Order: sequence, then C-alpha cells, then structure tokens
Amino acid sequence: MAAKPGIPKGTRDFSPVEMAKRNYIFNTIRDVYHLYGFQQIETPSMEMLSTLMGKYGDEGDKLLFKIQNSGDYFSGLTDEELLSRDAAKLASKFCEKGLRYDLTVPFARYVVMHRDEISFPFKRYQIQPVWRADRPQKGRYREFYQCDADVVGSDSLLNEVELMQIVDEVFTRFGIRVCIKINNRKILTGIAEIINEADKIVDITVAIDKLDKIGLENVNKELAEKGISAEAIDKLQPIILLQGSNSEKLETLKQVLASSETGLKGVEECEFILKKFASLRKTEMPDLFDDKTNQIELDLTLARGLNYYTGAIFEVKALDVQIGSITGGGRYDNLTGVFGMPGVSGVGISFGADRIFDVLNQLELYPKEAVNGTELLFVNFGEDEADYSLSVLTKVRAAGIRAEMYPDSAKMKKQMTYANAKNIPFVAIVGENEMKENKVLLKNMLSGEQTLLGSDELIAAIRP
Amino acid sequence: MAAKPGIPKGTRDFSPVEMAKRNYIFNTIRDVYHLYGFQQIETPSMEMLSTLMGKYGDEGDKLLFKIQNSGDYFSGLTDEELLSRDAAKLASKFCEKGLRYDLTVPFARYVVMHRDEISFPFKRYQIQPVWRADRPQKGRYREFYQCDADVVGSDSLLNEVELMQIVDEVFTRFGIRVCIKINNRKILTGIAEIINEADKIVDITVAIDKLDKIGLENVNKELAEKGISAEAIDKLQPIILLQGSNSEKLETLKQVLASSETGLKGVEECEFILKKFASLRKTEMPDLFDDKTNQIELDLTLARGLNYYTGAIFEVKALDVQIGSITGGGRYDNLTGVFGMPGVSGVGISFGADRIFDVLNQLELYPKEAVNGTELLFVNFGEDEADYSLSVLTKVRAAGIRAEMYPDSAKMKKQMTYANAKNIPFVAIVGENEMKENKVLLKNMLSGEQTLLGSDELIAAIRP
Repeated sequence: MAAKPGIPKGTRDFSPVEMAKRNYIFNTIRDVYHLYGFQQIETPSMEMLSTLMGKYGDEGDKLLFKIQNSGDYFSGLTDEELLSRDAAKLASKFCEKGLRYDLTVPFARYVVMHRDEISFPFKRYQIQPVWRADRPQKGRYREFYQCDADVVGSDSLLNEVELMQIVDEVFTRFGIRVCIKINNRKILTGIAEIINEADKIVDITVAIDKLDKIGLENVNKELAEKGISAEAIDKLQPIILLQGSNSEKLETLKQVLASSETGLKGVEECEFILKKFASLRKTEMPDLFDDKTNQIELDLTLARGLNYYTGAIFEVKALDVQIGSITGGGRYDNLTGVFGMPGVSGVGISFGADRIFDVLNQLELYPKEAVNGTELLFVNFGEDEADYSLSVLTKVRAAGIRAEMYPDSAKMKKQMTYANAKNIPFVAIVGENEMKENKVLLKNMLSGEQTLLGSDELIAAIRP
Repeated sequence: MAAKPGIPKGTRDFSPVEMAKRNYIFNTIRDVYHLYGFQQIETPSMEMLSTLMGKYGDEGDKLLFKIQNSGDYFSGLTDEELLSRDAAKLASKFCEKGLRYDLTVPFARYVVMHRDEISFPFKRYQIQPVWRADRPQKGRYREFYQCDADVVGSDSLLNEVELMQIVDEVFTRFGIRVCIKINNRKILTGIAEIINEADKIVDITVAIDKLDKIGLENVNKELAEKGISAEAIDKLQPIILLQGSNSEKLETLKQVLASSETGLKGVEECEFILKKFASLRKTEMPDLFDDKTNQIELDLTLARGLNYYTGAIFEVKALDVQIGSITGGGRYDNLTGVFGMPGVSGVGISFGADRIFDVLNQLELYPKEAVNGTELLFVNFGEDEADYSLSVLTKVRAAGIRAEMYPDSAKMKKQMTYANAKNIPFVAIVGENEMKENKVLLKNMLSGEQTLLGSDELIAAIRP
C-alpha cells in the first residue's frame, strides 16, 4: 500500500469553492485593468539564474527555488569542489534556472528583450504565481499569486493618478472600504536634507510611526538614541506632530521643507496627484476623514521599498479588518538599467490576492453569482427518464444555464446530497408522470418549493 | 554593461496579443466546462518527487524538473556518494520536490488527499502549466498549458457522451471543423483475443493505420514480419479492411468479435455513446461522412495511452489544417490506486491549447472582440485639454468602454503611432475648439472618418 501523499510545505491545493472565489478576485482586477487600457503579458515560470540572482539582495538569493540541470549536472566539477560541500557556491554549478521570485524582474527582462516590439508607454499587467523558499507561516506561502500593473516609459504623474483610480475602483467593486495611503520618496529625502541626516530616514519614519502608541516624549527619546542631534529633533517636531486634513499636512510640509528643493518637489507631486484624483471623483480634496468613499491619507511613515521607489509611494489598508497592507506600489526609476537599458522609469501597483481573499471571506462579501457553479441538476431515475432529461438539458444549456444530470440512477438521497454538496440552487425531477405531461418538476433547493413546468418555463424560472 | 538577458530554452514570453488569443481559448473551454457542471481546481506547481516519480516510466522520471533543496542540500551525503557523481541517484538526495509533469497525477493525489471533502461523482477541470525537460523543438515546449476535464467516481457511459458533447461544442464555438475519432480499448482487446495474440495489439493497429499508404498486401506482409500467424492474419482481414459508415463498421465488428465477450462489450459501449450523442444532436447516427457538422469516426487505429485507458478512447483532428491531434482522452480505471485508494474509475479529456492556438491562427478564426484591448484613446495636447479629456474619460469608462489617455503631451504623430501599435479602433481628439463646444472629435481609425460628438454620443458611437 502506497504512503499517504502530501504536498510541499507552504503550498496549497485550491478547491472548487476557493477557485471560484479566487477567480472572482482575479477577474475583478483584470476587468478594471482592461478598462484602463492595460494589456496582459505572461513570462515563463523559470528564468535563468543569471537574470534573478543579485536582484533581491543576499537574503533574496537564498530564497530562490533553483532547478537542477537536466542530465549530468556534475560535469566540470572537481573532486575538491564537490568535497567542499559549499552549498551556496555549488548551487550555481548544479543549477542554471530558478523559479521567478516576483513579477518585476521578469517584467524588466521582458521589456529589454522585447524593446523593439513594445510601443511605449507600455501599460502591462501580469497575474501569475511567484515562488519563495521563505519559512512558511500563517498567511505566508511558498507559492502565491501577484497581480501587478505597471506603466513604463512615461514620467507623467497622470499615471499615478490613474493607478489610484484603479485601486479606488477595484476596492469599490469588491465592497471593501479602504484607506489609500500615499507618500513620496522626495518628501522623505527633503526631511533628511533639512536635518542633515541623510542616512537616518528609516529610523525617523519608524519612530514617527510609534507616536500614537508611545507619545511624543518617547518618540523624541528614541530619535536621540538613534544618534539624531537635539537640533535636528527640534526641527522634526512639526513633522512628527503632522496632523489634520491632507491639505493641512501639505501646507505644513511646504513650510518645513521650504529650504529643500527635493522636498518641495515631493510635496508638489503629492498635491498634484491628490487634486487630480479628487477632481475626477467630482469631490473636494480627498481625505482621511471622508467616510462616504474610500479614504485617502498622506502618511509620512509610509516607507515601503525605500531603496526602490523614487517618487510616489502607495499602500492600501482595509478599514474593517485587521490585516497588513492589501495593495502597494510606487514610482521607480531605472527599471531595466540592470539589464543594460537605462532611462526607463515607471510606476506600478500590486494587489495582494491572498490577503484580499481573506478580507472578502471575513466580511462575507463574495457575490453569490460569482461563487455559484452548476445552477440546475437533473435527478436520474433510469434510462427512459435520463433520455427525456437529457433532451431538456440540451435546451437548458443552449440558453446558457450551467446544468448537469447525475450520471448514474443512484438513490434519490445520494443525488440530493450531491446537489447540496455542490450548492446547486435548483433540482429538476423527472419521473413517469412528468414525462407523460411533457413537463419537469422544478425544486427550489432554498425554499423547498416545487413547481411543474414546461422546458421554456423552466428556463424562465431559473433566469428570470 | 550587463549581458543581454535571455529565457530558458523551450520556454516563451507571451505578448499582449498572444495573451488575448490564449485567454480567448481558455475562456471558451472554461465556459463550456462550466455549462456542463465542471468545477475548477488548482494544485501547486511543485509536488513531492515521491508523488511524481515512477508514474511516467523511466523516461518520464528523467524529464521531471527537480528543485534543489533549500539550505544545506549536501547534508547526510558521504564522500563516496558524492564522488560517485551518479547524477540520477544523487538527484533524489539533492531534491525532494519537482515541477508537475501533467495534471493527471496531481489530480489523483488531490482526490486521495481530499476524498472526505469531495462529493462524488467529481467533475473537475484544471487549466495550468506543466513542465517537461524534453528536447525543445518546433511546437514542443518545456512549459505548456494543459486544459483537462475529468469525471471520477462514476461508471456511467453518459459521462463519455457528455465529454463528446463538450468537444463538439468547444470546436463549434471556435469555428474549427474537426473529426472526433472514437475507439474502445475493449474492442482492441477483443481483436487480440480472437486471434490469440494478446501482446501484438499495438503492432496490429500500427500496421492497419498504414493501409491507405502501403496497401493491403504490404500490411499483411508487415503483420507476418511481426510474428503474427497466417491464420490470425486471415481472421484480421475484415478488420483491416473495415470501411463504411460507423453503423456498418459496428455491424462488421459484431460479427468478427462474436466469440469475444470483451470485444462485444466494447462494440456495445461504442454504439451506446454514438447513438446517445446523435440523439442529443437530433441527427441520425453521427458519421465520418457528415459534412454539415463535426465528423465522428470509429477508428480502430486509435490506440493512444493504451496502457492507461480501459474503455472509450477519444482523439480530435482538425479537418482544415495539417496538425497532430488537438484533443484527446478516454476512460481509465483505478486513477488513484497508486496512492492507496482503489476502485476510482474516471473518464477525461484534455484540450491541446498550443495546437489550437496554431490552428486558430492559421485559419484566422479569432473573433475581433476577443483580441481587442483598448477601444478608445484620448490624445493629450497639454494640461487643459488633458483635464477636459480626463473628465470625459471617466464617463466613458463608467459606460464599460476600455479607454485611456496618452499620459504625456507628446507629438501628435507619436500618439497616433501608439494608437496604431495597440490596434485601438477609435481616437478622441480634444483641442481648444472641441473644449469650447463641449465636444470631442472622434476619429475612426479604420475608415479615417472624423465626427464631432458630445460625450453621450461618443459612448453611443463606440458601443452602438
């Protein structure tokens, strides 16, 4: 007897119900991407290790899944090399391919390889799995999907506005109330400039982020401990205490950053994006205090991907569920420089499908139609009844109704259990009487109501 | 300067146009699967090698892509083992996971692992990539998609009928004329029985298949060379020369196989499937000579997956393009026995997406709507015009039209080139005059016609 089979840790099977929900998420995002003129591409699951290595830091290199070369992967290896047992070094001899770690590096590689076919600005989206040999834990998987959209080859801030519209639209369609947080790398750079502490910007944002929890005094203490001078901490006070509406925050920042050209540029960009976005929503300057629609918050503690982003930074938090960021993105320069094609700037967002899945589950927001499979099951009472049912079934399907007949003339109870397990809302029962009258007995599985109907009436009853 | 990047041999990038075409294929197949009550599942790309090894023969084991263990994959290996450089043997020490080779073995593993959640008969479909370290060649890739549907846990032949209906429906939707070939493993077993040559059935089907090319005399010669007795060859004559309509073929087979219980059972199954299928089509017995609809041919040379299939065998050939089989399938026993769960029979089909892609390309059958992306581009003449355009754009998108504005106020020629490259059928031009009149100049890119329209008229013009 064979051993009970399992799957690699950190990976998942998706059942029919889970797939229907996931497809609802992907299709909603895809529809909105299409509405905004984004086009889908796909890249291979495997990339050359030379493409992937060195792009995610030392830690990232370790988390790459590497694929063993086919055939004699020992060729060219000396005894000494083998006996060194240097796993990291020899991996590059045993393997030349790896599974993609994200969608960004393969996209950069795609842009470089296909530069002559692409008409810039290139608005592409990509929904594919990525793999990371991370230690699996709750909510962290070794195989998971990313849903990225990027515009490359255009510096216009209208692209940032459009991505905010997309985020707004997607979460409105999901029915998830969110706060879209926005920041700008140039503002952070400006802050570091005015206090002459260019390398301390992460320490500063981490400390500011704790204001609500530990209070101003302790934030200042932490900044001092990080080696920031008393004078600099003094200058930081209006920024630590930055409060009010987005407009008020922007006004404060204009004053504080008056001497930093970069800082002011960041404020200006933020203001442009927020104002355009608001005017297209036909509302005032969007705000954190807006409770009719999704909230927008200028948040200086937002410092994701700081080494990567060069302008706007986005992050989205669900308002009604405690969970980490469910979408993020920003503006970056030089996407493709590492592959020898300089000067390609871009801006992108990435929806976190797994977390959105959890939020929709928790709030029970899946629309019934999206998750429904078969709409109608014909019970099977034997050959004659089956023949009759099959001819009605053909008509029903031709009307676009998802329908099936139980393939065996099993016990009624078994067939009804099947209908319940598959959550089928209607069951058609055909016995001798129904055949004689050229009708079908339609049972509504929710109400229990039973009605005798002709085939056209049957179709109308299911698709009113 | 970095080296020019490439992708692993046998893998592909898919451009926006290719993706749109592929999505059309997958969506068409998916829609029909849903119409027949099939539910989607997904399994991880990686499976344990213990799940995969030994399921595809020695050759298959060699073609598995194996994933190197994370961390110190040398642990537990002696110097002697290492220096043996036995690539095949040591692969199992270095690797415990591999990429899936097909969708069938992971599906069997899924059924066993989730047996308690599944309500049988289980009608599942799965559309996912698989990986094989085959030597790449024209039309053969190392990563490609399979689109499988299977019903497991039901012996009813109505499942076979339904799968034939699905094949018929899918290719009708594609507009590809096909011949659906059908055979039955039990007929082949019956033929072997009556001539007492159980192990020669492959030789026999291969020889019969050559009848048109080499003639009866040479077929008989080949059979003799394969060691089949003169008496057996004599008995085989009606089978080699089997001709006429499917009904005629079935009649001949009934006579020839009169002494073989298994053979007659196979004939009976074939007859049942063909008759039911015909009655649901509201036609006579479907036939090879049917030129109004897809053709159906009982073809004894069909012997695909002979070690695997136990009943019906299907294969689909395109009628108007020279290409191998574009879909195949059949009935199998004991899907899950190898994982310790005996007695699960099933029947399935698999659409060959890559070949269907080629056929649709060659016959130019892609519907325009399916491949279209953005429907309307707003040209960008500067900030005021952009602001005006963006407000119209919001309305247009709210009407469900896929639309975008060129993000930079670049030269007109550049923007029109972009529209052409993306195959956008309509361009909206907004200058000072249009703004004054509160209108938009809509250009039909195909006809060149230009019309001045209000925003509602604009929407109506694009979506009449």
